[in-house]
Amino acid sequence: MIRDELVIGLVQHAMGADIDANRTATLDGIAEAAARGAQLVVLPELHATEYFCKYQDPALFDLAEPLDGVTRRLLAEAAADYKLVVVGSIFEQRAPGLAHNTALVLESDGSLAGIYRKMHIPDDPGYNEKFYFTPGDLGFEPVDTSVGRLGVLVCWDQWYPEAARLMALAGAEILLYPTAIGFDPADDESEARRQLDAWRIIQRSHAVANGLVVASVNRVGFEPDRSGGAYNAEFWGHSFICGPQGEVLAEAGTSSEVVVCTTDRKRSETVRRLWPFFRDRRIDAYDDLVRRFRT
Amino acid sequence: MIRDELVIGLVQHAMGADIDANRTATLDGIAEAAARGAQLVVLPELHATEYFCKYQDPALFDLAEPLDGVTRRLLAEAAADYKLVVVGSIFEQRAPGLAHNTALVLESDGSLAGIYRKMHIPDDPGYNEKFYFTPGDLGFEPVDTSVGRLGVLVCWDQWYPEAARLMALAGAEILLYPTAIGFDPADDESEARRQLDAWRIIQRSHAVANGLVVASVNRVGFEPDRSGGAYNAEFWGHSFICGPQGEVLAEAGTSSEVVVCTTDRKRSETVRRLWPFFRDRRIDAYDDLVRRFRT
Repeated sequence: MIRDELVIGLVQHAMGADIDANRTATLDGIAEAAARGAQLVVLPELHATEYFCKYQDPALFDLAEPLDGVTRRLLAEAAADYKLVVVGSIFEQRAPGLAHNTALVLESDGSLAGIYRKMHIPDDPGYNEKFYFTPGDLGFEPVDTSVGRLGVLVCWDQWYPEAARLMALAGAEILLYPTAIGFDPADDESEARRQLDAWRIIQRSHAVANGLVVASVNRVGFEPDRSGGAYNAEFWGHSFICGPQGEVLAEAGTSSEVVVCTTDRKRSETVRRLWPFFRDRRIDAYDDLVRRFRT
Repeated sequence: MIRDELVIGLVQHAMGADIDANRTATLDGIAEAAARGAQLVVLPELHATEYFCKYQDPALFDLAEPLDGVTRRLLAEAAADYKLVVVGSIFEQRAPGLAHNTALVLESDGSLAGIYRKMHIPDDPGYNEKFYFTPGDLGFEPVDTSVGRLGVLVCWDQWYPEAARLMALAGAEILLYPTAIGFDPADDESEARRQLDAWRIIQRSHAVANGLVVASVNRVGFEPDRSGGAYNAEFWGHSFICGPQGEVLAEAGTSSEVVVCTTDRKRSETVRRLWPFFRDRRIDAYDDLVRRFRT
């Protein structure tokens, strides 16, 4: 029986060039979350490596691993050891030269509950993701687990109300966003603050619009542009979890940190009865949402 | 030629049982906004009357007026007198027993630039709008004016990312929300705070998701339930305007107040180049947005 309380752990950590050290940080974070009672643990995007999309280099496809690779095995062992559900993230090699940015959902017995392949792929200076990641082809489908139906999305997806809505319409009870986002050291402080605020606002708004819990897990730390270019990044952390009115329940700072937070599943229904947005959607008038632009 | 700077005035005021006094408050607010340089003035929802949807009474349809009624005439005169664009709101009688909640856009020469009929109609205790307002049948179409293409939406629409997106896809440069929303005096302080925050977050998120300016104008003051029922309301004001990263540029308190704020039209393009969300929408995977639910 699924309980009303769900304890969620967010493992925010830094990544460096040493993949083994990154894996240790991830597994230590899961262990800490488990010790503090978490039933569901969410990891940052691409937690095995530095954020390698700063520039384009075909050699970096060597970082990709298959769906049944090392990361999955380690996460499955941790999930089974601690009897909790783990949401992780890999650079997935699907075929030679065909890779995805994929979230893995491991059940508490170590089995693979499901995957989500990042649907919206960014591409801006320092974030050359369209070079590495083929857009997901599995759509917006939640994953059923022993702790509920999870709407797993990844990073850039967080800017799209459509993605959140489609997960909610498919019965997702929680939205989860493994993420890698940081400041451009060249930006001034006011621009940096606007970006961080915008990132919080858009994700909290998905909680409000859909009346459900949202959790976002980011990495932290400075990562140099190893091509020698200008795209150093300072990942901003601030992993957080909010309730179905967008109210922040817990939030990390800018250092490595495990956030553990208890959520109340019944709160979603209470809020949706108060503000029944699903009831009043004008589905007769939304056809143009599948157009690129209307002019 | 449309200038880069646009000065927007938000007229937040209280309404009472005396319709003439309400009209005077509205017109005084427009005059103040004009004196302070506004080129576009936005009024609260249903500014001629108290918020009458607290209970259901067929006699209250007497408050409705045709599209060419007194409110339009007064707003047209003010628009022409001060040479500015006015966005107002009426209880529109379209045919006997058929009424809408309609926004009017008056051009700076007093002509009617366009209308928008509220598409999403709420219905909760104290907000019996489905009794009074037939859902809009004009879709989500912006109105072209001398100060730009305005995405006018009304109150409950503000909770729907779909409405904001459709206006943005149709080229709206600004989203405007005449609104009437308040606290239920029976709620405790933490619930009241969550509601106000949720209201701000969802509207600021439309600015973020679509890279444009958003302004929302609410009424203020206590209005008793004149049926003798329990649905007294304390309208919370807090009219605000935010930029295309969701950053609040100006915000009112909980009293009558005219907010005047200068916005920069070029900022939208700068922000959209930085975060090109429109480019990456997965329109191939959004078909289910027109479904009521997916389970």
